[in-house]
Amino acid sequence: MASYQVLPLTRLIEQFQRLPGIGHKTAQRLAYHVLQMPKAKAEEFSKAITEAHEQIRYCDVCKNFADRERCTLCTDESRDVSAICVVEDPRDVFALERTGEFKGRYHVLHGTISPVHDIGPDDIYINELLDRLKSGEVKEVIMATNATVEGELTAMYLSKLIKPLGIKVTRLAYGIPVGGDLEYADEVTLSRALEGRGEF
Amino acid sequence: MASYQVLPLTRLIEQFQRLPGIGHKTAQRLAYHVLQMPKAKAEEFSKAITEAHEQIRYCDVCKNFADRERCTLCTDESRDVSAICVVEDPRDVFALERTGEFKGRYHVLHGTISPVHDIGPDDIYINELLDRLKSGEVKEVIMATNATVEGELTAMYLSKLIKPLGIKVTRLAYGIPVGGDLEYADEVTLSRALEGRGEF
Repeated sequence: MASYQVLPLTRLIEQFQRLPGIGHKTAQRLAYHVLQMPKAKAEEFSKAITEAHEQIRYCDVCKNFADRERCTLCTDESRDVSAICVVEDPRDVFALERTGEFKGRYHVLHGTISPVHDIGPDDIYINELLDRLKSGEVKEVIMATNATVEGELTAMYLSKLIKPLGIKVTRLAYGIPVGGDLEYADEVTLSRALEGRGEF
Repeated sequence: MASYQVLPLTRLIEQFQRLPGIGHKTAQRLAYHVLQMPKAKAEEFSKAITEAHEQIRYCDVCKNFADRERCTLCTDESRDVSAICVVEDPRDVFALERTGEFKGRYHVLHGTISPVHDIGPDDIYINELLDRLKSGEVKEVIMATNATVEGELTAMYLSKLIKPLGIKVTRLAYGIPVGGDLEYADEVTLSRALEGRGEF
């Protein structure tokens, strides 16, 4: 590498490079861009980072990101309290909300059970979910964990705990993605799509 | 889009989305990553942005980025003062320094002449370059502007001003990129490569 360095710039490049999916070239491009922004814009960016950290917390109820004690989804009285959709990550809430199809509440586990990574049921927000079910309001829990080994394992574990409470436990459907080519679907997805086939 | 929002998070996503080449999905991924960093790391990131803006200026001599009056390249006495390499952008200095081939000084124009964008010779650092040539120390000026219409135009314009001063003006060689397939080279590059062919 070049011996030539401008320290504050090098530091900024390094910061960008720590972000996921950002290599050295991209980090350099981003750092230069930030440097060429008007100063006020750069300060806005810098402030957005610290403010996000200072102001964002987990919702007391669903553990989703929130900027107050309860997130807007948990305080929204128009949403159905009888259905809880269980996801691994706050991003999944965003993704599901974009569909506009689900009108119930969420529960964010912040991870999955993973024996390989030594993550047990107590390391994610499972007890908090079980506490929410005690009120008796909830009639259905929809498992929307990822279709990975860990995601499946966690969904299975949870369903074994929840079914005995007399609550219906469902799982997102597996199948070929809409707009996807059959040809490119893997065997497991295809057999799941066959199993789950519906009538016209 | 979802009605569901966590304002500080939305703001951070928007900030990332303003960066070049970062779409909504990537911005979201980066913002979530920053949010899940330890607080100290996020503050470091935020500080790197403001510090870069506060501490970085243009070198008094070559207009490259510097954190003091003169950049480390201009104060490095071991570098050849008789050759100046003219580039459009500070990033080009980094790129050339990585080769380790050039041991002279640089001059950063911060743009090109561009009639289309109403950028004339006085809008970029051309006068500052001409001032540097007055000392009589410089024997060669190497044009390393981009191989675009504007880059060529600027190089041509400069060479017409500099040659009469009795200073040699050269241009980076055109040709096929090393490791590049002939098949994929465009006609213009190929004809330039032919023109500039050298003996074995």
